[in-house]
Amino acid sequence: MINKLIDKIQKTQAPIVVGLDPTMKFVPEHIQKKAFAEYGETMKGAAEAVWQYNKAIVDAICDLIPAVKPQIAMYEQFGVEGLIAFQKTVEYCKQKDLVVIGDVKRGDIGSTSEAYAVGHLGQVKVGNTMCKGFDEDFVTVNPYLGSDGVNPFIKVCQKEKKGIFVLVKTSNPSSGELQDRLVKSKEAGGSDRPLYEIVGEQVAAWGAECMGDSYSYIGAVVGATYPEQGKVLRKIMPKSFILVPGYGTQGGKGADLVHFFNEDGLGAIVNSSRGIIAAYQQEQYAKYGAENFADASRAAVLDMKEDISQALAAR
Amino acid sequence: MINKLIDKIQKTQAPIVVGLDPTMKFVPEHIQKKAFAEYGETMKGAAEAVWQYNKAIVDAICDLIPAVKPQIAMYEQFGVEGLIAFQKTVEYCKQKDLVVIGDVKRGDIGSTSEAYAVGHLGQVKVGNTMCKGFDEDFVTVNPYLGSDGVNPFIKVCQKEKKGIFVLVKTSNPSSGELQDRLVKSKEAGGSDRPLYEIVGEQVAAWGAECMGDSYSYIGAVVGATYPEQGKVLRKIMPKSFILVPGYGTQGGKGADLVHFFNEDGLGAIVNSSRGIIAAYQQEQYAKYGAENFADASRAAVLDMKEDISQALAAR
Repeated sequence: MINKLIDKIQKTQAPIVVGLDPTMKFVPEHIQKKAFAEYGETMKGAAEAVWQYNKAIVDAICDLIPAVKPQIAMYEQFGVEGLIAFQKTVEYCKQKDLVVIGDVKRGDIGSTSEAYAVGHLGQVKVGNTMCKGFDEDFVTVNPYLGSDGVNPFIKVCQKEKKGIFVLVKTSNPSSGELQDRLVKSKEAGGSDRPLYEIVGEQVAAWGAECMGDSYSYIGAVVGATYPEQGKVLRKIMPKSFILVPGYGTQGGKGADLVHFFNEDGLGAIVNSSRGIIAAYQQEQYAKYGAENFADASRAAVLDMKEDISQALAAR
Repeated sequence: MINKLIDKIQKTQAPIVVGLDPTMKFVPEHIQKKAFAEYGETMKGAAEAVWQYNKAIVDAICDLIPAVKPQIAMYEQFGVEGLIAFQKTVEYCKQKDLVVIGDVKRGDIGSTSEAYAVGHLGQVKVGNTMCKGFDEDFVTVNPYLGSDGVNPFIKVCQKEKKGIFVLVKTSNPSSGELQDRLVKSKEAGGSDRPLYEIVGEQVAAWGAECMGDSYSYIGAVVGATYPEQGKVLRKIMPKSFILVPGYGTQGGKGADLVHFFNEDGLGAIVNSSRGIIAAYQQEQYAKYGAENFADASRAAVLDMKEDISQALAAR
């Protein structure tokens, strides 16, 4: 799947992933009204609104981008009905030949991580039948529990030719509270380093055993909001693809992104969520109006592509 | 909800939570057969088997224990159908007046954690209507993203009178890879301490603002497999309830548990999953047979209660 992701990035010339993170305040009123008329102001109504909203955006942008990243929390908030909309979204995007990164940030003790891994990337045995669950192409994984929590995902990836992105340095303001803490070297005389570097080294080590043609299918999450750390981590994990959230609304700019990429112009894929899916709510794209929200999203994707390619050309 | 949990622990004299973590290999064949006859070897068949299995166990033990802890991964592996079984299990246990701890280990950037928090503990706005999602009483939370990822849960807990348990030192063998790393003090001359102590201090600080009658509703997860660390953390977080996994199958014993409790005999609740729900598969309870699996679970709860109360009496 990492080979497919890279192939699609090269074909679209867009190292971009669009975060399908719908909240009700992004969904245009006419879509909400229609869904509520059919199902009432219920979880089912909310899920229908979210699904119709996603579908229109995916239809409008699927030829421009290699991948989407639905954030499962935005569906899970609507309970089981929301998760049905998540599943429909994953399936629909795969039909459109998009690579689907499930932003699930799961991670637990070994036997439990195994259940998450089969549920999201693999297959589970029911009687003598193998069944697929959510079936994303990649998922994000939380490393706080150590290798026990990550290895079950790696095993399923090897079997299913899929991949993961491990949280290394997240984009949020408080990510440093634990991730930036200086950790004592285990070797005498070794220098103290921030925790995210330790995690980055683990990602590189896990990834070395899991190579696609040119990059590993064990990637990392490093926020666009921390370009200096991105520069360091790029060197620590030369063969790992970096999923870069935080562009746009969270404050990351094109120029901040260049060090996340390798010399080959690859190695990173930049996520924007609200900046694309709720573009119509921004002044810059207000002219499209709520009715044409999907056209606004398309324009925002084209602008983001231009911003990143200019930044890469200028380095 | 922390007051209710403590009240129920005192009434049952059992600081015990039973992990409802069903995998197909625990579910007796007669239950699987019946479910597959009705729904086939499908996700729906698996979910039905899991639900019938849970229901029988809950019926057999609900008068003995204060709380249950369904591990959502074990349901999520069966996709949407599994999550319907999760929801049914949560609802059923609440009807039986059990406190329900959703072991979900969620945690993300602020706006995303907020979606998880409302989906699992709170209410989400759909149009002008407030709707409830999974509606557990407590959930477990991963701290790797720092306060941004935890605060939205705390806010919802304050509003809904619910609670969380933050992962501090997990029970699995590799938990030390990150959690035990020695972290440099921020103060000159301060001593280096393991990361789990830093997280424990954060839990104590968050918890101080969120007090029930005698304990905070911001608790911590500390594995029974690490009794020495439990002793230290008990002192760092005197007012936090500790959820203690790892008893039984993972290797923790009654005697390992005493330091997780305060002098008042409170402050900890010990989880056992497989040891209770799959008791009939152990030699000690084999006499019950697969048909009477729920009776075996009841016997295992009584034995666990005795083991812990003896250990507490002997200290």
